[in-house]
Amino acid sequence: MKTVMTMDFKEQLQNEVLRVEEILDEYLPAKENFQKIIMEAMEYSVKAGGKRIRPIPMQESFRMFGGVSKLVEPFMAGMEMLHTYSLVHDDLPAMDNDEYRRGRKTTHVVYGEAVGILAGDALLNYAYETAARAFDMADSEEMCQRVSKALRIFMKKAGIYGMIGGQTVDVMNEGKPVEQDMLDFIFRLKTGALLEASLMIGATLAGADETKVLVMEQIGSKVGLAFQIQDDILDVVGDEKVLGKPVLSDEKNRKTTYVSLHGMKQAQEDVEGYTKEAMLLLSNLKNSQAVCNTEFFENLLVMLIHRNK
Amino acid sequence: MKTVMTMDFKEQLQNEVLRVEEILDEYLPAKENFQKIIMEAMEYSVKAGGKRIRPIPMQESFRMFGGVSKLVEPFMAGMEMLHTYSLVHDDLPAMDNDEYRRGRKTTHVVYGEAVGILAGDALLNYAYETAARAFDMADSEEMCQRVSKALRIFMKKAGIYGMIGGQTVDVMNEGKPVEQDMLDFIFRLKTGALLEASLMIGATLAGADETKVLVMEQIGSKVGLAFQIQDDILDVVGDEKVLGKPVLSDEKNRKTTYVSLHGMKQAQEDVEGYTKEAMLLLSNLKNSQAVCNTEFFENLLVMLIHRNK
Repeated sequence: MKTVMTMDFKEQLQNEVLRVEEILDEYLPAKENFQKIIMEAMEYSVKAGGKRIRPIPMQESFRMFGGVSKLVEPFMAGMEMLHTYSLVHDDLPAMDNDEYRRGRKTTHVVYGEAVGILAGDALLNYAYETAARAFDMADSEEMCQRVSKALRIFMKKAGIYGMIGGQTVDVMNEGKPVEQDMLDFIFRLKTGALLEASLMIGATLAGADETKVLVMEQIGSKVGLAFQIQDDILDVVGDEKVLGKPVLSDEKNRKTTYVSLHGMKQAQEDVEGYTKEAMLLLSNLKNSQAVCNTEFFENLLVMLIHRNK
Repeated sequence: MKTVMTMDFKEQLQNEVLRVEEILDEYLPAKENFQKIIMEAMEYSVKAGGKRIRPIPMQESFRMFGGVSKLVEPFMAGMEMLHTYSLVHDDLPAMDNDEYRRGRKTTHVVYGEAVGILAGDALLNYAYETAARAFDMADSEEMCQRVSKALRIFMKKAGIYGMIGGQTVDVMNEGKPVEQDMLDFIFRLKTGALLEASLMIGATLAGADETKVLVMEQIGSKVGLAFQIQDDILDVVGDEKVLGKPVLSDEKNRKTTYVSLHGMKQAQEDVEGYTKEAMLLLSNLKNSQAVCNTEFFENLLVMLIHRNK
């Protein structure tokens, strides 16, 4: 299932990415006082040149359910900060021990390991401080409840029942053969959880009811799985220069991947399968409530999966 | 300024500590699924035998302003989890490199460094997840706003403008001579911030107005300073066996302390001075709103400072 990436889509995406950069600049802390270095390390980590597309599905989910205000913006900034903290801690010597990410030195290499740990902690904490600024825009019980629900989804999907849970299982099984159910668990929690959170948060802030929020979770789960399988595929066929990390790094670490478990053909079919299922759920939702055009949203999710870089 | 520790006080404190243990058991996550080890490491860290008095000032502040419900309990549990995460990360090899705490092996020694990092992250995240469960008890806009305010105080005082900020400055100046203003900054943020947060959160959840919440912040700040100066004093005169950590460990690390900057006599006078100021603020508050008996609260704060273990 390929979606045509029209000039319109690329232009709109570029605009959205620029807007995400602006939002991040607005919400990153000023670099001041005795603890200035931690703010510098946070900014260095966040600005390490990611694609900045992570907060966009959250915004699209918000828009899809009729959201028009700036309510979603502190959560978008918080999501990017939270994602960054997980990378900073993942790169530490006791974890993946990566000295470079996206061609730049990792945070602990530049600032030392102690500040690397603290900068990760700081980004995790500040992600929630930032998202919670949405309470400033909540002037009724209904809005206060929406923000609190969104915040709790964010926390749950980032924690031991989400990303941290997935990271733990991943770390504990480094270099060991892994069964399918455990690999699914790692995929679902380590990569999928934050995407699920993004789609759920957008919908919740816009006032979608619980059932629809749960459908958004399922869409996130399926896109996340497809994304992660595609990642394993790219690790085998990708071009090192394009990806910015050594190809076959998973194989080097003797890691079980979706491709090593199921073979390349099955992996590619499953990417298509999960993508289709996600698109069907999205399309049913759209029809059930006559929402605005979701073409950009669909293109975005497919692009997330079908990337080659 | 010594306060008489009556049998009543000791009994009441013991009861409150038991209640804190119960609350923690209620809020710690079940140990289940593939990521079970992270829940085990969290529990091991939290149950490492602390004095469990940290959440009690929060509860007393809540009671002082008329709070009677269970609203404060998730925040009490969250505060203990957050404090624990800071210890787990502080003990890591790249930070203080401590193998023992309170006579038990530290988390990273038992579970490995990677899980040590993840368990700290998990406790930080779960501290907020836990505190946010207070939203379940917030059934009006007023209550929703109180919980959101309390949560934001918690986050701010734990982050770069609070504890993490203090830790950063502390770590960056390890082994270097430190000026008074920087030492104050470290004391205020690294140790004081969470106590300030505790008193402010209790008051906020009970519905105290902004001015009174700010007075509670000042009380926390003064008690925190006195506590930290007393810590430096104990480091010189304390008995290793009683304290459970090597005496003169700060001197070993060539660390500037309040005692090395000002001498023992001044340090002892300042402990008394800050304690008196805090008690005066508390007493004024009590008189201004005819609140219930604060004798236990006063005894508690003085005990926090005048400990010898």
